[in-house]
Amino acid sequence: MIQVSVCGPRDCTGEDESNAREIGRLLAERGAAVICGGYTGVMAAVAAGARSAGGTVVGILSRADREHANPDLSIVIPTGIGEARNSVIVNSGDAVIVIGGSWGTLSELALAMRRGRVPVVQLGGWRLLDHDGRPVAGIRHASSPEDALAITRLWPDR
Amino acid sequence: MIQVSVCGPRDCTGEDESNAREIGRLLAERGAAVICGGYTGVMAAVAAGARSAGGTVVGILSRADREHANPDLSIVIPTGIGEARNSVIVNSGDAVIVIGGSWGTLSELALAMRRGRVPVVQLGGWRLLDHDGRPVAGIRHASSPEDALAITRLWPDR
Amino acid sequence: MIQVSVCGPRDCTGEDESNAREIGRLLAERGAAVICGGYTGVMAAVAAGARSAGGTVVGILSRADREHANPDLSIVIPTGIGEARNSVIVNSGDAVIVIGGSWGTLSELALAMRRGRVPVVQLGGWRLLDHDGRPVAGIRHASSPEDALAITRLWPDR
Amino acid sequence: MIQVSVCGPRDCTGEDESNAREIGRLLAERGAAVICGGYTGVMAAVAAGARSAGGTVVGILSRADREHANPDLSIVIPTGIGEARNSVIVNSGDAVIVIGGSWGTLSELALAMRRGRVPVVQLGGWRLLDHDGRPVAGIRHASSPEDALAITRLWPDR
Repeated sequence: MIQVSVCGPRDCTGEDESNAREIGRLLAERGAAVICGGYTGVMAAVAAGARSAGGTVVGILSRADREHANPDLSIVIPTGIGEARNSVIVNSGDAVIVIGGSWGTLSELALAMRRGRVPVVQLGGWRLLDHDGRPVAGIRHASSPEDALAITRLWPDR
Repeated sequence: MIQVSVCGPRDCTGEDESNAREIGRLLAERGAAVICGGYTGVMAAVAAGARSAGGTVVGILSRADREHANPDLSIVIPTGIGEARNSVIVNSGDAVIVIGGSWGTLSELALAMRRGRVPVVQLGGWRLLDHDGRPVAGIRHASSPEDALAITRLWPDR
Repeated sequence: MIQVSVCGPRDCTGEDESNAREIGRLLAERGAAVICGGYTGVMAAVAAGARSAGGTVVGILSRADREHANPDLSIVIPTGIGEARNSVIVNSGDAVIVIGGSWGTLSELALAMRRGRVPVVQLGGWRLLDHDGRPVAGIRHASSPEDALAITRLWPDR
Repeated sequence: MIQVSVCGPRDCTGEDESNAREIGRLLAERGAAVICGGYTGVMAAVAAGARSAGGTVVGILSRADREHANPDLSIVIPTGIGEARNSVIVNSGDAVIVIGGSWGTLSELALAMRRGRVPVVQLGGWRLLDHDGRPVAGIRHASSPEDALAITRLWPDR
């Protein structure tokens, strides 16, 4: 089963939330499991979108218990390892999609690029410039939920 | 969805393997997801048993990639945190069932008892004596796969 | 610098505490750094013993902050990874000494044996029997703090 | 003892390396322990600088053993938790100083800002723009090693 990690802020914009919900729905329709952080904001929206289409959603929580987990998780992994769980989330995807901007989200984007084996796609959110003011290479930017999935190339025949 | 963590050695006895396969099958029949370490031995047997009955199996791997993961996992979580992932496994169960004996397995039994919020059931494996030579209290010992599930009390009406 | 991990319960006996303090003192006298869990009971006693002899003590905490850390730590590592930090403690020692018995302590003993590259010495605490009722092989049992250090063989010329 | 986490790339520029060495030296002179990732590049330079001034350096390694650790570490913590150790590094500082740019380094910067309790100072490296193209607020930028330490405010009377 293809697994796609979807990361994003607890406090997100309405546009981020709408994008997350649509990405969740599309992933479920394509038979992919969604891996997410399991709480609110983008995490809750992608889970709700996937569940609305009958998909599987795994929530990899920072806490050691299920408190504050969103209600749309199929599987709950209360890691108890705090923010260190961000690296577990990005290791678990055949692709990583990052929606919106926050410090936690940026850490996931960076860890996903550090891992370096799978496509990392960004939809909205922050931009990175190198020391000379040029965009840092490597992240693939999407213009829409559909585009984000296309960029992963996990479904080359669609 | 009820989640039950099932722990046991890579190098297990034939009896452990048979017990693990049966517990996997029974959990799947009752609609519970199996959480396991994702590799060989007891981990592979419980996964195979659950899949044979159409169940869901989550493999929480020590490695950061899917290498050596058994083929019966529905969801693969390559944590990349080494043996520290044992505490993630035991945190993820509504009950923890331990089959057979090894050092890694003992660490999971101990971490499950340390966690202390859910039933911990042992089927076969090592025994613990306190400083005075008396059995250490707390672990519930099962005599069979069926008995192990009964002891968890997750299905009180059966 | 030689590093020795010393593990033991928060709620320990007076004898455990006295043993831990003595082991801390002896390790400091031999120029070894003590690695411990950083809280109370055996952890506090080994830290106090080491500091009384001018030694270095590293506390590897489960919490993400310094709350409840004992006052004798030279270096504080608030991992934030909960009980998963037990595997960090045992990975950090050139030997692992376990004093007394508790579930957390047993998990450290088991993880140290699972790691398998360094001597693991037990002073007091629980006993393990295999499926046939025989002591599980591998752990080296000490009769005193001096004996525990001798068994590590880290100072072969003494 | 004050602890300062210093983060930066394995593959760093000559300027990053020189800055790291100087920051290590200054921290040692002020009696602070350096916490770093323990490998090469900025990690090795800050360790060498601190040791040249008699300081204490803790290397929090991703690996479970000491392989590839730099030679200037006073204390080695082979966590075995992979890149998840980045969050342990940032949790361990009374301030976090980030030198230069890489994906791993960015993850540490982001995790440090996510933690939010201590000053986070950046010297060189990448820049972050929000969705509207404005610099993301919160990171304090330093112009020199001396300035980096001043910005932490850990030594208000200097």
